[in-house]
Amino acid sequence: MKSRAAVAFEAGQPLQIVEIDVEPPRKGEVLIRITHTGVCHTDAFTLSGDDPEGVFPAVLGHEGAGIVVEVGEGVTSVAPGDHVIPLYTAECGECLFCTSGKTNLCVAVRATQGKGVMPDGTTRFSYQGKPIYHYMGCSTFSEYTVVAEVSLAKIDPQANPEQVCLLGCGVTTGIGAVRNTAKVQPGDTVAVFGLGGIGLAVVQGARQAGAGRIIAVDTNPDKFALAKVFGATDCVNPKDHAEPIQQVIVGMTGWGVDHSFECIGNVNVMRAALECAHRGWGQSIIIGVAGAGQEISTRPFQLVTGRSWRGTAFGGVKGRSQLPGMVQEAMRGDIDLAPFVTHTMGLDDINRAFSLMHEGQSIRSVVHYGTS
Amino acid sequence: MKSRAAVAFEAGQPLQIVEIDVEPPRKGEVLIRITHTGVCHTDAFTLSGDDPEGVFPAVLGHEGAGIVVEVGEGVTSVAPGDHVIPLYTAECGECLFCTSGKTNLCVAVRATQGKGVMPDGTTRFSYQGKPIYHYMGCSTFSEYTVVAEVSLAKIDPQANPEQVCLLGCGVTTGIGAVRNTAKVQPGDTVAVFGLGGIGLAVVQGARQAGAGRIIAVDTNPDKFALAKVFGATDCVNPKDHAEPIQQVIVGMTGWGVDHSFECIGNVNVMRAALECAHRGWGQSIIIGVAGAGQEISTRPFQLVTGRSWRGTAFGGVKGRSQLPGMVQEAMRGDIDLAPFVTHTMGLDDINRAFSLMHEGQSIRSVVHYGTS
Repeated sequence: MKSRAAVAFEAGQPLQIVEIDVEPPRKGEVLIRITHTGVCHTDAFTLSGDDPEGVFPAVLGHEGAGIVVEVGEGVTSVAPGDHVIPLYTAECGECLFCTSGKTNLCVAVRATQGKGVMPDGTTRFSYQGKPIYHYMGCSTFSEYTVVAEVSLAKIDPQANPEQVCLLGCGVTTGIGAVRNTAKVQPGDTVAVFGLGGIGLAVVQGARQAGAGRIIAVDTNPDKFALAKVFGATDCVNPKDHAEPIQQVIVGMTGWGVDHSFECIGNVNVMRAALECAHRGWGQSIIIGVAGAGQEISTRPFQLVTGRSWRGTAFGGVKGRSQLPGMVQEAMRGDIDLAPFVTHTMGLDDINRAFSLMHEGQSIRSVVHYGTS
Repeated sequence: MKSRAAVAFEAGQPLQIVEIDVEPPRKGEVLIRITHTGVCHTDAFTLSGDDPEGVFPAVLGHEGAGIVVEVGEGVTSVAPGDHVIPLYTAECGECLFCTSGKTNLCVAVRATQGKGVMPDGTTRFSYQGKPIYHYMGCSTFSEYTVVAEVSLAKIDPQANPEQVCLLGCGVTTGIGAVRNTAKVQPGDTVAVFGLGGIGLAVVQGARQAGAGRIIAVDTNPDKFALAKVFGATDCVNPKDHAEPIQQVIVGMTGWGVDHSFECIGNVNVMRAALECAHRGWGQSIIIGVAGAGQEISTRPFQLVTGRSWRGTAFGGVKGRSQLPGMVQEAMRGDIDLAPFVTHTMGLDDINRAFSLMHEGQSIRSVVHYGTS
């Protein structure tokens, strides 16, 4: 079938809005009509060419919401008409990782997903007869997309797709990191580095968890107002201080924070986040994705004196098991999604969403296909 | 009073056996007659001059056993005649850290201990009228030493001091790292880097915890026999492999080990230990002490995909609360100390203990004062 799509033909170039061909779903696959998709920094990172796993041409986008159109052979967990969120972190329920009870990092479709193809090694997208690659198992920048059944969370059809699409990545990552990875407890102190969509979601998650002090850190003070709305108790601009930000935060707290979160992808900030963690038990959670080849460093003394350095992907959330419940939370207002959606636009304007993001003008732009 | 002691007058020089002056214990302090002391790599590290906190002249030694001779004002938890192990990690029971329930890193005497003085800022040792510094709050290389009350574990007087002195550092650190820091569970896989006293104690602790597979790693294959005695299931010499050791271990295990332990103090090995941890949940525990200014590095992807990088000091053991019970375990044979004691000698031969250690000829040399 034909589908309107924003295609990344090559790295570093704007997306092109074209009509691509989408093949029917094969065994274990599902054809979805995407109604809304967020534009995330990870899409921009891959488009920039800095992502070593990036393949082109591709249909990017991984933060979407849609409706099942057709299911392939053997698909039982969803049916046409079901409302769904595509998952870049699949949940097969059967692999070593899914059955461990210790992680959400399912490996069912990992190898092929990283190469931009479906589990059988081929692509369902083409343009003028030439294959176009998938992206993160989702490719939500096409009105019609094909994903693996294990990469789909079935959600309440009453949910507002313009908002809950954000649970496909950023908001879930931030709130999940607080709940599943750090396990923030009431009264704990938290520092959040970077107040984009993920950082703000961490702030919100920390407030929900009852954190006693939430220190929001960003070099752009324009972001502090919204951070406070979400629950930040202190806002700090590293540019206002001569000493390194980790020293500032240790000074503010005595011995550092119980939990710190790096939500940028900057390896220097990752170090600062670790080094402001509390002696004895503080932990630092890396959420941001660093550029290819970049490394984190610190003195091992930081760890020997009780700090833990950790990371999280998709906030440790098992998508099919846990995301439907988070959608319900959003519908009840327990997760507040509306403030994240700072801009909405049709697919034809999707390159503006990237510009707004690069300029720091948006939290999230949500693109719609005009059919919801 | 006079005391025979092995004094480190300056960095990089052999210890000198001299008679020093030891002042009586002041408020909150205890005078101890040391009967036995192990010689640990940390003593050699400080003696080498590489330890940025090292001060000279000093009485080194931190792995001892002894008997209380006299107590200072206000001391209530020990009395003359009590058998004790000095603790370089104090336990005051009252500070933020002791009362947290999350760490053993008491701060009661931390600041002064690091400077080589008693909590009141002065030293009890002198030689020819000039002050000699303390070391790690213990200074077990003197027959008579003064330590803070909070730095003493009272132990069963029937325990064999030649063996249980090793619970003052190395063995407790290794077994404690398995129990308190990593919390190894039955069936877990473990990799241990470096088969000195601490590494062998990790192996023993892992076997006690019921680990299913214990991979012992050292570049000196002479150490494998004893590692197997303690419970190693596999022994690997990195020199036997062309690829990096982390790849070898991932290859042996499929996805890496549940827990890895760095017991050397080599920042490159610390990286390897992290990178052989299991995707999704593996954790790597740094035990070794790196040289001044050295840093650890890795790609943040290692953490984002579920590995945790942690550290431990004194195996997370709270000395006054937990060490007496570990001494009981040793007396029952549940902790096997005898194989660690490869050499014993009088104080006059203490420099030979350092030589044996440097040459890789000993696990632990235990020095006695000839009076036990």
